[in-house]
Amino acid sequence: MDFDFLAPLIKKNGSKIVLLVMDGLGGIPEEEGGLTELETAATPNLDALAARSLCGLQEPIGPGIAPGSGPGHLALFGYDPVRYEVGRGALSAAGLGFELTSHDIAARGNFCSVDEAGLVTDRRAGRIPTAKNAELCELLRSRINLDSAEVFVLPEKDYRFLLVLRGEGLREELTDTDPQALGVPPLPVRALVPEAESTAALVDQFVGRAKEALAAEHPANMVLLRGFSSKPSWPPFLEVFGLGAAAIAVYPMYKGVADLVGMEVLEAGDTLEEELATVERVWGDYDFFYVHVKKIDSAGEDGDFAGKVALIEEVDRLLPRLLANKPDVVIVTGDHSTPAAMKLHSWHPVPVMVHSTVCRPDAVVRFSESACVTGALGPRMRAVDLMPLALANAGRVEKFGA
Amino acid sequence: MDFDFLAPLIKKNGSKIVLLVMDGLGGIPEEEGGLTELETAATPNLDALAARSLCGLQEPIGPGIAPGSGPGHLALFGYDPVRYEVGRGALSAAGLGFELTSHDIAARGNFCSVDEAGLVTDRRAGRIPTAKNAELCELLRSRINLDSAEVFVLPEKDYRFLLVLRGEGLREELTDTDPQALGVPPLPVRALVPEAESTAALVDQFVGRAKEALAAEHPANMVLLRGFSSKPSWPPFLEVFGLGAAAIAVYPMYKGVADLVGMEVLEAGDTLEEELATVERVWGDYDFFYVHVKKIDSAGEDGDFAGKVALIEEVDRLLPRLLANKPDVVIVTGDHSTPAAMKLHSWHPVPVMVHSTVCRPDAVVRFSESACVTGALGPRMRAVDLMPLALANAGRVEKFGA
Repeated sequence: MDFDFLAPLIKKNGSKIVLLVMDGLGGIPEEEGGLTELETAATPNLDALAARSLCGLQEPIGPGIAPGSGPGHLALFGYDPVRYEVGRGALSAAGLGFELTSHDIAARGNFCSVDEAGLVTDRRAGRIPTAKNAELCELLRSRINLDSAEVFVLPEKDYRFLLVLRGEGLREELTDTDPQALGVPPLPVRALVPEAESTAALVDQFVGRAKEALAAEHPANMVLLRGFSSKPSWPPFLEVFGLGAAAIAVYPMYKGVADLVGMEVLEAGDTLEEELATVERVWGDYDFFYVHVKKIDSAGEDGDFAGKVALIEEVDRLLPRLLANKPDVVIVTGDHSTPAAMKLHSWHPVPVMVHSTVCRPDAVVRFSESACVTGALGPRMRAVDLMPLALANAGRVEKFGA
Repeated sequence: MDFDFLAPLIKKNGSKIVLLVMDGLGGIPEEEGGLTELETAATPNLDALAARSLCGLQEPIGPGIAPGSGPGHLALFGYDPVRYEVGRGALSAAGLGFELTSHDIAARGNFCSVDEAGLVTDRRAGRIPTAKNAELCELLRSRINLDSAEVFVLPEKDYRFLLVLRGEGLREELTDTDPQALGVPPLPVRALVPEAESTAALVDQFVGRAKEALAAEHPANMVLLRGFSSKPSWPPFLEVFGLGAAAIAVYPMYKGVADLVGMEVLEAGDTLEEELATVERVWGDYDFFYVHVKKIDSAGEDGDFAGKVALIEEVDRLLPRLLANKPDVVIVTGDHSTPAAMKLHSWHPVPVMVHSTVCRPDAVVRFSESACVTGALGPRMRAVDLMPLALANAGRVEKFGA
């Protein structure tokens, strides 16, 4: 739904909306005819909520499209992720609290390993610890000076870093240097439009200097860059939906995407318990609470079916604590599916439920992929439709027309 | 579906389509876990038709959006209500049979009560009777002469009237004077574009004169205006769908919206029986019959759950009489939900069924919110998709492409 259509209909009241995102929630059975991770998990509390909710499956982007974390979340936040496209660089910057200016381009970097012939042997540099990463970022920052741009290099977790170049006329229309394969050299950066040629040359210059500076640092003796992007300028959540929103997330990426839509990103600790304590602490201060649970996705990406089941069960155990805040509307879903059997983000529609006292529940009594197929939200709901529905259930949308 | 796409595919034949609109049909349970109005009602005839139909739930505008009567009906008529937006003034004019010209702007007026300080104390002037309303309209018409526009004031039901100003260069881009609140003065009318400044001044002049003229008429001692609009110019129903259409409705609003799409608005009496007699009388003369049942919505708006149930049962009793005309295609639905528990139009998807001898029925055997969730039309069908589907079931759409 277009923001121009929705915004004039928004009204405010004292209601509270919770969006609980179980990252990578959806899955598939390990063997044909079996159960998914969510179906295997014992989830009495999620099931009880499903029985009182609208249920369904949602597609974050569209049919057959596996979402990255950024687009998956933007869709849940009501921002069409095809229209509101954000590069991984800008997302990383937001996640680290690095405020991009209009003169910046950002890229996500990996430290990686190359052999003597310059061919990539490990795209993650043996997953070096974050402390080593920080040391190497400092090394790059101190050793590299470019002619026409200021250079920022900031460590993320493990082998990942953020590169920001600040200068006049920098453009984001650049290809990645990450070849996404082993046994080949890093790719040269290429301009996608003529106006980006000089920026491409500048990035090449950075990559050459980085290779020199890291020569003695094997396994982290080279860098790969992807997701060149400048700062997006989007209508903020408060303006679009009239909701003062708090983001309660642990990992930078999710804080970053919340920041991009103008949510207030809170210090939320490291565990789900700490996140829930944060919700309780600020319950009076916001209208909308985005609560992110990361580790389910990580287990899926590791192919750890049993681990993903256990993490889903942990969320189920803690759900009553979240509900004890008595939100007027609760949405539970994921930003995409991450089947352990596939070890990656997939396109499979994600279970979703929406509860309020006026939601008119369907007959679904189990929060699972199979059960949600016959729910009132349908088996292929567009994720961007969740926010208008949540607002309506919260009594925050005026009638359209006379 | 875009009219430009559909229109070239339309062919004509002798088939007949009936659209039965049970206004405000959808509901919610009074208490969690209970039944809706439609689920509470005994509806053997609707259920029998459902068993032979495609069933589902439709959203008139979009997820989370509660439709006004105008947009709700436009969607059922196949006109995207966001694209074909109509102001309340133009809708009122059409409903009263007042033919707007291209030099007119129309507004919906309320007689209201103000205190000595000019603050609104009752937005409906104690719901004065229609006869008093007519008298006051005559008073305004006789007392008010404006410099640069002709003034028409026509009574609607109760405290509502239609204001039309006719003159050169009048513009509809004006804000309402109705503050939608008590204890505050009526709002000054404001131009939304510079070209509407002179029209705003003219309306202000009307409001000032009306206040003088009504000074001694408490409780109807002031007017509130909203929904300024000029006459829309849309592709007519006959041209778009190839259907000669009759509108059988009792209330002005519904006659009005049918008139806006070019349906022929018939004298249809005051009761459902009289409406059905009208259908029978003109059965040979039209291809499409829009039959509107108002009172279900009124009961919902009054919070009268039992009354709404009884009115649904009355429609069920009379359904066989409508079907005895042997339409080729029958659609039964509502223009929106009006849960008695909420006393207002709501966003909840509305039960819908489409019957023809070639419709390929689903397994739904009960016409209810819960049962329709699993029907072949899906739980969140777009209402504008009903007309193409009805036309296809009537054998009136050519194959697309070779």
